[in-house]
Amino acid sequence: MKKITSLFKIKYPIIQGGMVWTSGWKLASAVSNAGGLGLIGAGSMHPETLKIHIEKCMRATSKPFGVNVPLLYPEMNDIINLLIKKKVPIIFTSAGDPNKWTSKLKKSGCTVVHVVSSVKFAIKAEKAGVDAIVAEGFEAGGHNGREETTTMVLVPLIKKETNLPLIAAGGIASGSSMAAAICLGADGVQIGSRFVTSTEASSHINFKQAVVSAKQGSTILTLKELAPVRMMKNKFYNEIYELYKSGASIEALSKHLGKGRSKKGIFEGDLNEGELEIGQVASHIDKIISASDIIKEIIEEFNTKIDHFSSKRIKL
Amino acid sequence: MKKITSLFKIKYPIIQGGMVWTSGWKLASAVSNAGGLGLIGAGSMHPETLKIHIEKCMRATSKPFGVNVPLLYPEMNDIINLLIKKKVPIIFTSAGDPNKWTSKLKKSGCTVVHVVSSVKFAIKAEKAGVDAIVAEGFEAGGHNGREETTTMVLVPLIKKETNLPLIAAGGIASGSSMAAAICLGADGVQIGSRFVTSTEASSHINFKQAVVSAKQGSTILTLKELAPVRMMKNKFYNEIYELYKSGASIEALSKHLGKGRSKKGIFEGDLNEGELEIGQVASHIDKIISASDIIKEIIEEFNTKIDHFSSKRIKL
Repeated sequence: MKKITSLFKIKYPIIQGGMVWTSGWKLASAVSNAGGLGLIGAGSMHPETLKIHIEKCMRATSKPFGVNVPLLYPEMNDIINLLIKKKVPIIFTSAGDPNKWTSKLKKSGCTVVHVVSSVKFAIKAEKAGVDAIVAEGFEAGGHNGREETTTMVLVPLIKKETNLPLIAAGGIASGSSMAAAICLGADGVQIGSRFVTSTEASSHINFKQAVVSAKQGSTILTLKELAPVRMMKNKFYNEIYELYKSGASIEALSKHLGKGRSKKGIFEGDLNEGELEIGQVASHIDKIISASDIIKEIIEEFNTKIDHFSSKRIKL
Repeated sequence: MKKITSLFKIKYPIIQGGMVWTSGWKLASAVSNAGGLGLIGAGSMHPETLKIHIEKCMRATSKPFGVNVPLLYPEMNDIINLLIKKKVPIIFTSAGDPNKWTSKLKKSGCTVVHVVSSVKFAIKAEKAGVDAIVAEGFEAGGHNGREETTTMVLVPLIKKETNLPLIAAGGIASGSSMAAAICLGADGVQIGSRFVTSTEASSHINFKQAVVSAKQGSTILTLKELAPVRMMKNKFYNEIYELYKSGASIEALSKHLGKGRSKKGIFEGDLNEGELEIGQVASHIDKIISASDIIKEIIEEFNTKIDHFSSKRIKL
């Protein structure tokens, strides 16, 4: 785990996932101040908004923080130049080709991490020169890979094929699942859904409460023909389901998705019409507390696991 | 883990999954002789065949062993009566209602375990009076649940809602993933795919070699409208995929599936026309060795994990 804490100069190997409409400067700085690595989610921000969040984050914490950039974003040139100009120390890139921006960011002194859902892209990211990899499993919320490989299977596969520090994501919301990820070979964990229900997340209270109420089977990976995304089953999802059943075209699906669905759901709290991006692990989450309390709880549970684990040695 | 080793009177908390066309008396007795719990997979056997396998297994080992019974099987009355008559000590039931046979089996002195993919059925199984539960995640091979919940998410959920000894299944093929499952709250593990590539498995050498060659993305969960099953992507699967694309009816899918596909693939080694049931974790498996060597390797790796783990305590 030292590989991760040394790389980012943080106390705990816990990275808060950069999430659209959820992780602005408030959440990112709270996580960084609590000893983890906070990430601003640039996916829902125009460059001018992102600039404000970076500036506020820098004022709110003296600790390292980062920005998560989904590379499929249209204003990527401006975003990358902004990140360099603002000297953001750590950049997580996702949903795109790691070859495109890694060397430019590295030359400017950034630490670069790439998020992958496959061995193929992990190898590609290592060759592109990134500093670490996030291996994100099928159970993770939001945009996801087409391979449907779960965290349990993906993490050891990528561990075997690459030499970089490895961060596990998907299905992790507690000290127990963090311990499981470390057993699988991860050096640290990225946690998304759990921080959606932090007091500092900018997600709407309706959405936070929906996450707390979520049960097994509340989420589904859908829209695989467009860009696979895990979201809650709600009215909007039921309409997608009906479209699939009627054999709708990709164009019809895309038209129904339209624009602004994730803002509507996550930020404005419209639980019927919005796209409610969240992981399967929502079913584990039962309260809304501060980011620092989340981190404290996770580390304490992790340590308890370690203490109990030493008695589990099996005599051959 | 003692909950599992005491319940079954075995040395290691490793259960070999009962698999069609793969786990006959040879594999089951080899696993039991090596200190795990071997299971005969009754899913591919008529009662008269199962009878022979039970008798041979009893001659081949003096240790406890069990039989896995998928309850959707047509000759269930005969099978259950046979198991009772032969005094099979441990019965794993799957793919059906735990209320139907549990009390009859329990009254006859059997230890009964039920395999589930959901919290709902775990609670139902506990109420039905079973002795332990297998929580099987989305990544597992063969017949699988509709909830698509991964092992990482499912195991802690069921741990929270039931009090029974808990066995994790899906994505486990090594000491590392066994350690991860224990961190998640399991008391033991059920391992299927890894034992497909044991020398004692009755699966065809072509299939064993295909499992060894499998990569990430080699398997898929499909036929959800019939009975969801995870299998390898091969010619037969490609045909199913084309049927789906053309909007085929359930009847058309069922007709194409036909009968005897798993026998053809797993037992006869027809990698094109057969249904090759296997888990995502096939991508981790790289050799064909004996069941006892598999168990030894897993326990040794598990212990190494434990030894390294104690140094990972995090200072708050």
